[in-house]
Amino acid sequence: MKTQVAIIGAGPSGLLLGQLLAKQGIDNVIVERVSGEYVLGRIRAGVLEQGMVDLLREAGVSERMDREGEVHTGVELAFNDKRVRIALDELTGGDTVMVYGQTEVTRDLMDARKEAGLTTVYEASNVQLHDVKTDAPYVTFEKDGEQVRLECDYIAGCDGFHGVSRQTIPDEVKTEHERVYPFGWLGLLSDTKPCHEELIYCKTDRGFALASMRSPTRSRYYIQVPLTDKVEDWSDDAFWTELKRRLPADVAATMETGPSIEKSIAPLRSFVCEPMQYGNMFLVGDAAHIVPPTGAKGLNLAASDVATLYKIMTRVYKDGDKDCVMQYSEICLRRVWHGERFSWWMTNMMHDFGEVEVNGTDSQTFSRFMESELNFYTDNEQGRRVIAMQYVGLPYEDIK
Amino acid sequence: MKTQVAIIGAGPSGLLLGQLLAKQGIDNVIVERVSGEYVLGRIRAGVLEQGMVDLLREAGVSERMDREGEVHTGVELAFNDKRVRIALDELTGGDTVMVYGQTEVTRDLMDARKEAGLTTVYEASNVQLHDVKTDAPYVTFEKDGEQVRLECDYIAGCDGFHGVSRQTIPDEVKTEHERVYPFGWLGLLSDTKPCHEELIYCKTDRGFALASMRSPTRSRYYIQVPLTDKVEDWSDDAFWTELKRRLPADVAATMETGPSIEKSIAPLRSFVCEPMQYGNMFLVGDAAHIVPPTGAKGLNLAASDVATLYKIMTRVYKDGDKDCVMQYSEICLRRVWHGERFSWWMTNMMHDFGEVEVNGTDSQTFSRFMESELNFYTDNEQGRRVIAMQYVGLPYEDIK
Repeated sequence: MKTQVAIIGAGPSGLLLGQLLAKQGIDNVIVERVSGEYVLGRIRAGVLEQGMVDLLREAGVSERMDREGEVHTGVELAFNDKRVRIALDELTGGDTVMVYGQTEVTRDLMDARKEAGLTTVYEASNVQLHDVKTDAPYVTFEKDGEQVRLECDYIAGCDGFHGVSRQTIPDEVKTEHERVYPFGWLGLLSDTKPCHEELIYCKTDRGFALASMRSPTRSRYYIQVPLTDKVEDWSDDAFWTELKRRLPADVAATMETGPSIEKSIAPLRSFVCEPMQYGNMFLVGDAAHIVPPTGAKGLNLAASDVATLYKIMTRVYKDGDKDCVMQYSEICLRRVWHGERFSWWMTNMMHDFGEVEVNGTDSQTFSRFMESELNFYTDNEQGRRVIAMQYVGLPYEDIK
Repeated sequence: MKTQVAIIGAGPSGLLLGQLLAKQGIDNVIVERVSGEYVLGRIRAGVLEQGMVDLLREAGVSERMDREGEVHTGVELAFNDKRVRIALDELTGGDTVMVYGQTEVTRDLMDARKEAGLTTVYEASNVQLHDVKTDAPYVTFEKDGEQVRLECDYIAGCDGFHGVSRQTIPDEVKTEHERVYPFGWLGLLSDTKPCHEELIYCKTDRGFALASMRSPTRSRYYIQVPLTDKVEDWSDDAFWTELKRRLPADVAATMETGPSIEKSIAPLRSFVCEPMQYGNMFLVGDAAHIVPPTGAKGLNLAASDVATLYKIMTRVYKDGDKDCVMQYSEICLRRVWHGERFSWWMTNMMHDFGEVEVNGTDSQTFSRFMESELNFYTDNEQGRRVIAMQYVGLPYEDIK
């Protein structure tokens, strides 16, 4: 097999990149380790920045999102018996976010890819990247018991945190930054009416909680739990009871509950791999960076990587400017670090860190700093602007 | 002896409080452990917030400050070969800071106190506070070999971090929050023309530096040094050489150097004692809280404590409302924590933390977060506003 851009991973990043490249006449093949159904089964993010929404529109896959997605003009922060609304649109001069599940984005992209007749190899095992530092890289994998070789000009590593792409970069040329938090999020998905029309991030003495949603009839809730908790320890009833204790009382009082469709515990991690490219191989999204979900930035940072790689590939194939690929990592990392910092900051500010030492200070002192941080940034308009402009997403950087 | 308010400590906080109280006809006596000359010999802060400037005017001691002090409408942050000016006045709607040395403030206050004929007992040894939880507290001390008893209604503990006042609060009713930083500041005072008309905070690979001043002919410079360094290790020449390496090149090139008038190493510390009052004894300034000097907040936080205590004492003696004293700690602590957080944040952002783990993350990751923080908060106007409004000082809170 031969293509121009080999894309490793058929999650939303790989699919979106493939769709955008195809629109520019750039041939691409996606190689995915698992099945399409498995990919669709992953429950992930649901808040799309304006930049990602625009990118989905540019890729021609926005029809259902524009019909079914919910534009949110604000989010709430609840703490100390207060509720502060961050009016995203007013504070940023009109920017908003779109609530539309990652699963739905993936489904739309899969449908579009099928319709466009583009090649996706699902259930490809033993995927390996070769000669990525040369002008003739290639990918090998096994499919239905046969060994396949896919030759290409470039490789986009969209295969997530545990994927093979990042492992292809030798340890001596990369630095992996990591912060693992001393707690996780227990998430529950249910076909219930969301308890509030906008997201509510709650800081309480019992720990953090988030009231989120996927649609007018599907809710997504999270509560902070110790890393030692197992999902089996949490019945649906126990979850709802604990959640209600952490939500604002009036919201909890009228909240609709119901059986879980999905329930799982995710650890919280900040992770960045520098650089994000190695020769003609580019890391995209989770393959290069992970954020704790507190800022709703995971999928959106992947989208901005896609936007950058898309612009670079277009320049390469339209203008024959091969040198521009060298900009990829630097451009991506600037925005990635801003998203990482924002997610780290929101996580620090909204969670209970218990008795762990944080920032070289005892937990009680750190918790006072974070209390002051939350009061300062919500009490005055300048602070709320800083939250809003980061929540809706910083602008995408152009290539030079 | 008998007075209404006994003030422990004749630093700027104690003197300012005394002056303000006297203006309202509230009798006060200051008891100070050392001599007036010794107090004046301490080289400290030099940047006054608008709120403190206004308070000095209200106390009637602003004549020389208004003549000799320099109003600064901006400060600079230098990093990565960039210089970003924070236009304080433009970003805050007109607020500025006043550069006027703490020594000069103290001298003006001492002169005013002498002129008003108010009592200050210098070189009082073995100062002790008694019965502060009762309506008849008193202070004892030795002066010229004699034991003196000073009866009063209230005690203001303005005697600094090492003073006796905070020690008077039993351990079981107070919480002391502390963060000690893994570096210090080596400061040098010289009669040289300041290298730049505004303060420059410099973040460099060699560590932090600050170019500050006290007057058009007196400069104050600082460089970050390891805590293991001794001031004897640093000749004036060595200081100037290292400073020039950390300042922006064009500033360093034209900088005037000269012999030091004073040179010392100060450790950096964040410290807060909660609560800030115990019965009829109130902690003011350094007695209750210490900030690292990076945000120029130390003296200014003391001034806002003074403002609060002054308003409360005025209410007590003018309106006979004794209950209002219970508000003191809560009102002060809100603003104190904001100042502590700002100073901690500026310190984190501008210094090199070396190989120490910070915020539960390795130093390299923390340093990337701080790089992103500095870029974000200086690259856009919303971020610069957040710096500016805190640098000029948050508003003083009224008593209820």
